[in-house]
Amino acid sequence: MTATLTSTPLVVRTIPEMREAIRTHRAAAGATASVGFVPTMGFLHDGHASLIGRSARENGLTVLSIFVNPLQFGPNEDFERYPRDEARDLEVAARAGADIVFMPSVAEMYPTPAATQIAVSGVTERLCGASRPGHFDGVGIVVTKLLNIVQPDRAYFGLKDAQQVAVIERMVADLNQPVEIVPCPIVRESDGLAMSSRNVYLSEDERREALVISRTLANVPAWIGAGKDAAQLTAAVKDGISASPLADIDYVETLTYPGLQPPAPEAPLSASGERIIVAAAVRFGRTRLIDNILITTPEA
Amino acid sequence: MTATLTSTPLVVRTIPEMREAIRTHRAAAGATASVGFVPTMGFLHDGHASLIGRSARENGLTVLSIFVNPLQFGPNEDFERYPRDEARDLEVAARAGADIVFMPSVAEMYPTPAATQIAVSGVTERLCGASRPGHFDGVGIVVTKLLNIVQPDRAYFGLKDAQQVAVIERMVADLNQPVEIVPCPIVRESDGLAMSSRNVYLSEDERREALVISRTLANVPAWIGAGKDAAQLTAAVKDGISASPLADIDYVETLTYPGLQPPAPEAPLSASGERIIVAAAVRFGRTRLIDNILITTPEA
Repeated sequence: MTATLTSTPLVVRTIPEMREAIRTHRAAAGATASVGFVPTMGFLHDGHASLIGRSARENGLTVLSIFVNPLQFGPNEDFERYPRDEARDLEVAARAGADIVFMPSVAEMYPTPAATQIAVSGVTERLCGASRPGHFDGVGIVVTKLLNIVQPDRAYFGLKDAQQVAVIERMVADLNQPVEIVPCPIVRESDGLAMSSRNVYLSEDERREALVISRTLANVPAWIGAGKDAAQLTAAVKDGISASPLADIDYVETLTYPGLQPPAPEAPLSASGERIIVAAAVRFGRTRLIDNILITTPEA
Repeated sequence: MTATLTSTPLVVRTIPEMREAIRTHRAAAGATASVGFVPTMGFLHDGHASLIGRSARENGLTVLSIFVNPLQFGPNEDFERYPRDEARDLEVAARAGADIVFMPSVAEMYPTPAATQIAVSGVTERLCGASRPGHFDGVGIVVTKLLNIVQPDRAYFGLKDAQQVAVIERMVADLNQPVEIVPCPIVRESDGLAMSSRNVYLSEDERREALVISRTLANVPAWIGAGKDAAQLTAAVKDGISASPLADIDYVETLTYPGLQPPAPEAPLSASGERIIVAAAVRFGRTRLIDNILITTPEA
């Protein structure tokens, strides 16, 4: 028997209990209390664990939420079959350092159909905003609700969903939501595949072929260094990913970040002085994977 | 020289200073600190003073905001000529008991055009929601921003804008905004006219004729008691207001409150068991006035 260094997090399922837990913590910890928050849809992997670990290092209390939000899934998407494993999630949460796990039901979060909509324009026009209509409206409302319930000082989001981070940063700035958004690097499997709860859907063949995304994106810094412009870079990434017979490209785009607008056309990205994202969404069978690379180019 | 019982409120013009003032108060007052908030567009009258006074009685700190929000005015409305008088407002605020007056500039509140929209459906379909397109989107965003900046425990709103109260209560519930909304009764001039910053626009003739609104609405309880249904009640109120040659009716409607939907047709309201609002918007010259009466009918 080995000693355990972790303790079981407090599991909270209702909004009043969640508010009460935070109030109690802040009253006990005093004016310097800080609360970190990691909102997730569960089926936790090492990417989530890295967010929880960072929050635990930077705050006196870390709240993890696990809520598969129906409003951010389209009618033909995978809400029903999205993977769920509460027992395993609680083990990951405990090991990573979460103090409270908030796991509300759909009825707790949406007791009546929400009459209030939040829509962020501009940064939602392209990428997943274009290929998943309504997705970011669902993200906006659930993140706002969770921030209002937990009232954290800092909230941690993974950059695999780089557009989601850009949308949330814009919403938080526009609405003066009192929280610091902390974007965190993509965590990858040892062979390079970006960690995702949806990787579990992949067949053995699909899992092997899916590596084409990260391997192709890994060439982006060299291609930018070689003088490619945005259109040439996008074309090169599409070519690279299309080399896999199982890859069905939803989108590949080269954009500025976090504004998510097209960079100047026909100009080498290497001298643009912009932060550039190359983002891809690719289907393997029924599974849609996303990945991206962010590059800060030197000043012109 | 008479002794003064009031002290000058702290005037704050930037968001960081406002947040800091609240942080300081909460740190000093401890876990039981409560903050009350009265958001206004200034040009304060006794209606506003009653909101400030109630907040001062119910909370350790009262914040008044004065901000003429361009987003809630339509292109042909009175944003530019909306009355402003900062010096007088500060006197009223001091006498009524405000501790902090938050007076941000438009550039402080909207440093870039807001990319984030908040829209509440259902309760915005009728009344001012129908006759002032976009008005409640502007209200939703500015109230959300102010609540996120001030982070009050309670926010006080006058029921002259009864639809605004219904919209804000729905938004706060849908978004789990951590605040208690406190609706407060309409305050009237001694002759019955509902107090409004816009009353200053009225000519002497218009001011006298405008009394037709409150005098007509005062008959509503008797008309409900006499067995009128919603259509009959609306017609009687329209007839009453139309008796003034200067009255130009924008709308008169009889609805449930706070849902703001039509009550059962052709049934006496007296037995509906519903909370009923009769709301009117009437122009006198270029000035648009609103007023309403709320009645809780006995159970059927």
